[in-house]
Amino acid sequence: MANQHVIHTAAYRGALRRLAAELGCDPDEATVLAHRNALDSQTHARELLRRTSTGTMLVDTGFASADAFSITEQQDALQLPQREVVRLETLAERLVAHAGDAPEWLRLTRHALRQARQRGAVGVKTICAYRASLRLKHPSADELAEAFQNLKEKIAGGHPVRMAGNALCHALLFEAARECLQLDLPLQVHCGFGDPDEDLAEASPLGLRPLFVDAEFRGLNVVLLHCYPYHREAAYLCSVFPGVYMDLSLAIPFASIDGTRAMAESLGLCPTSKLFYASDASRYPEVFFVAAMQYREALADALTELIDRNVLTARDAIAAGTAVLALNARSVYQLS
Amino acid sequence: MANQHVIHTAAYRGALRRLAAELGCDPDEATVLAHRNALDSQTHARELLRRTSTGTMLVDTGFASADAFSITEQQDALQLPQREVVRLETLAERLVAHAGDAPEWLRLTRHALRQARQRGAVGVKTICAYRASLRLKHPSADELAEAFQNLKEKIAGGHPVRMAGNALCHALLFEAARECLQLDLPLQVHCGFGDPDEDLAEASPLGLRPLFVDAEFRGLNVVLLHCYPYHREAAYLCSVFPGVYMDLSLAIPFASIDGTRAMAESLGLCPTSKLFYASDASRYPEVFFVAAMQYREALADALTELIDRNVLTARDAIAAGTAVLALNARSVYQLS
Amino acid sequence: MANQHVIHTAAYRGALRRLAAELGCDPDEATVLAHRNALDSQTHARELLRRTSTGTMLVDTGFASADAFSITEQQDALQLPQREVVRLETLAERLVAHAGDAPEWLRLTRHALRQARQRGAVGVKTICAYRASLRLKHPSADELAEAFQNLKEKIAGGHPVRMAGNALCHALLFEAARECLQLDLPLQVHCGFGDPDEDLAEASPLGLRPLFVDAEFRGLNVVLLHCYPYHREAAYLCSVFPGVYMDLSLAIPFASIDGTRAMAESLGLCPTSKLFYASDASRYPEVFFVAAMQYREALADALTELIDRNVLTARDAIAAGTAVLALNARSVYQLS
Repeated sequence: MANQHVIHTAAYRGALRRLAAELGCDPDEATVLAHRNALDSQTHARELLRRTSTGTMLVDTGFASADAFSITEQQDALQLPQREVVRLETLAERLVAHAGDAPEWLRLTRHALRQARQRGAVGVKTICAYRASLRLKHPSADELAEAFQNLKEKIAGGHPVRMAGNALCHALLFEAARECLQLDLPLQVHCGFGDPDEDLAEASPLGLRPLFVDAEFRGLNVVLLHCYPYHREAAYLCSVFPGVYMDLSLAIPFASIDGTRAMAESLGLCPTSKLFYASDASRYPEVFFVAAMQYREALADALTELIDRNVLTARDAIAAGTAVLALNARSVYQLS
Repeated sequence: MANQHVIHTAAYRGALRRLAAELGCDPDEATVLAHRNALDSQTHARELLRRTSTGTMLVDTGFASADAFSITEQQDALQLPQREVVRLETLAERLVAHAGDAPEWLRLTRHALRQARQRGAVGVKTICAYRASLRLKHPSADELAEAFQNLKEKIAGGHPVRMAGNALCHALLFEAARECLQLDLPLQVHCGFGDPDEDLAEASPLGLRPLFVDAEFRGLNVVLLHCYPYHREAAYLCSVFPGVYMDLSLAIPFASIDGTRAMAESLGLCPTSKLFYASDASRYPEVFFVAAMQYREALADALTELIDRNVLTARDAIAAGTAVLALNARSVYQLS
Repeated sequence: MANQHVIHTAAYRGALRRLAAELGCDPDEATVLAHRNALDSQTHARELLRRTSTGTMLVDTGFASADAFSITEQQDALQLPQREVVRLETLAERLVAHAGDAPEWLRLTRHALRQARQRGAVGVKTICAYRASLRLKHPSADELAEAFQNLKEKIAGGHPVRMAGNALCHALLFEAARECLQLDLPLQVHCGFGDPDEDLAEASPLGLRPLFVDAEFRGLNVVLLHCYPYHREAAYLCSVFPGVYMDLSLAIPFASIDGTRAMAESLGLCPTSKLFYASDASRYPEVFFVAAMQYREALADALTELIDRNVLTARDAIAAGTAVLALNARSVYQLS
């Protein structure tokens, strides 16, 4: 894909030109790479991050590889405040070995979430979409017990711990949602497109309906991540359920100007008090930079259209932009 | 939602500015409310309705609360002709107490539809999407009998009559469709988004396929209401099945300028002879006004784009606009 | 539909004006028909085809009626190189009578595909969406045996051979995919909208996931035809799976300028190395002409927008356009 096709995507082409302009060089890959590699990597990263105007980074730590920075190291390297977002499935997989049965495993997971909260985590993120359907259903105790038993047997047989399937993943997601509600932590849900190990047909945020209508989850804040191409559906959920929020990360920048269009479409139903900025970037400071620049441009475009059509005043639009880029997240994640 | 989020929707902002311009006051809620409340309410309502250019109102009477106007009262108050649209589920729920079993209940419902036709009703509306899936399936006689028995037992236990579930709702919808065909009454189907008690994942108009392909329904007119975000799917159905029609009410005005975009998208496949104007408004004359103004603007935008792209002549566009705003409904609902 | 509604579609109106401009006459149906019928039909067809700039036509021969040209006749008539695309279901239906059971039928089909390859076919096309769901599942041997038996009984009872249902259609599709991989032939899959005998709810390309992720299909090239309104989903598949390609035929010209919008939306995620030009035209040279003209315009529009937004240089855009209109197909279908 990389050599033959990624170079022919609008996202790649646009990013290359954006980076070249930033580095003051020609927009071809070799030149951009040469310019980048000639710079001190820490200075380069700080400079690109500075251009994103990021105030605080919310970091999903469960995605880290062995050589990744810890949150503290990243904070030192970038000189930007960092707050932890717990990746639910990674956390829960580590606890399988310590649990005799599924209920104990869920108890241990809730306990670990409380500990994460105590050490400063500001949110919990589920990547259920990579392991199961997002059409959530409460599994029966028997289904759950059997699935947990199967997982234990696999591990005993030498396989790495990898949770998958609806019974385990949905039980875990519901249990985490209960704990998030109690701890007043937002629950982030990867939905819409992503890597190929996800079945996009099963990844619409509409499947999360039990989190929005079951009485036991009243008061829970759910943040729908990415959403594309189900962003109109996500915007609808934001418009009718008080605790539902969304972002368009990944769509911006990877769907290029169709991400920009998705922003305009989302602001049809989604209140501007419900949309977040997010980059979904990791590892490469370039991705943070490109995502932030395009997100701001897309937002500016969408808000300008609303001004041009007599929906918003310029003042409304500035307030809306500030909310999307900073205030909404500060409020929902309780950042000081 | 209302205090924290609805005020941050494009629909609210746009409506406020539109109403303020109409009332000649500043576009903030307090000022608009003060101006409105200073007016005689009947004069205000009539004036806003006059601005919609409504010729005849088709009124779903099953949505009425106890203090709502009757059709006759509303006609007197607004001095606009009113025609009844029967809300199927409300009608059928009133008849459960009079029926010993499901077949009798369906017979009574058909009889009541014939009576409604005789007193002048021009259409039947189903809100099946609020009670069941729109992926229609003919229930078996046993499933239907059991569901009806359960409903009777609930009522006997003191619960209010509330039909729900696929067996009852689909059996009723199919039976109503048979009667509508016989009476030559269009069947309106709420599809796409709406209130949160509906599962949007189950509300695509594509699920209504049996109404379009089963031989017994040949000749039936089906009007898809709202449709968003499944409006491209609805437009497709309008393009291949002679008896299928659609509107974009609710999307306009509640999805703001994404409703405008939905109009343009729908006119890709949907013949202009198949699209209706509708407001889905009730209670507040302001909603009728805002919906009508935006619908006309959206239609003008979409048709202008078709002119600019050499698809329509100005003359074609005027004919299309007249069809959408008046002639199509007059013909399908047989309004004199 | 034709008399009352098709004439009110944007596609019909736009096509009429385009043809009238080409023929130098007034854009009404009678005048266009009169001008067309006054011309020598072969000259007229050749001239319209010449205007499409078609280098080689890939022809689905399984759609042909009894009076249709053979590939050789069409080549002579149009003086354009023609290459065969085998329609899988038509081929397989002819072989049912020669097979005692399902495995034999599948073996005969694979053999016939090899023969088609030998006589010069460049691809295989499945219209599974017209006969079954596109949510592919491997049927069990028992399900397949039973479905084959039922088909044989129907034929014995005097019915024409018509394969339908998931067991037969999915087994056939998977088996053809295995043979296509071995023969290095692209497998075209009709997905998205089409004729009313297809259930659009079951026709999303996302359902083809087993072809993209099952190890046995690694290396297979799959071309998603039409795609609308699932083109964003198709574009996603093109962006993550190396062997997936797409076109927007049928959407262009039948969704009129919403097909143009679909092109822009698709080029969000879809690499320009993965999009093909196709017309889905048959019989009428006018459809080839209109489809080609609109496709080029839509592509020009989408690429121009990418230039205007600093994503592509003019040079990138020209390369991308050439790829979409010719090079991608030449490469994947191995046209010399």
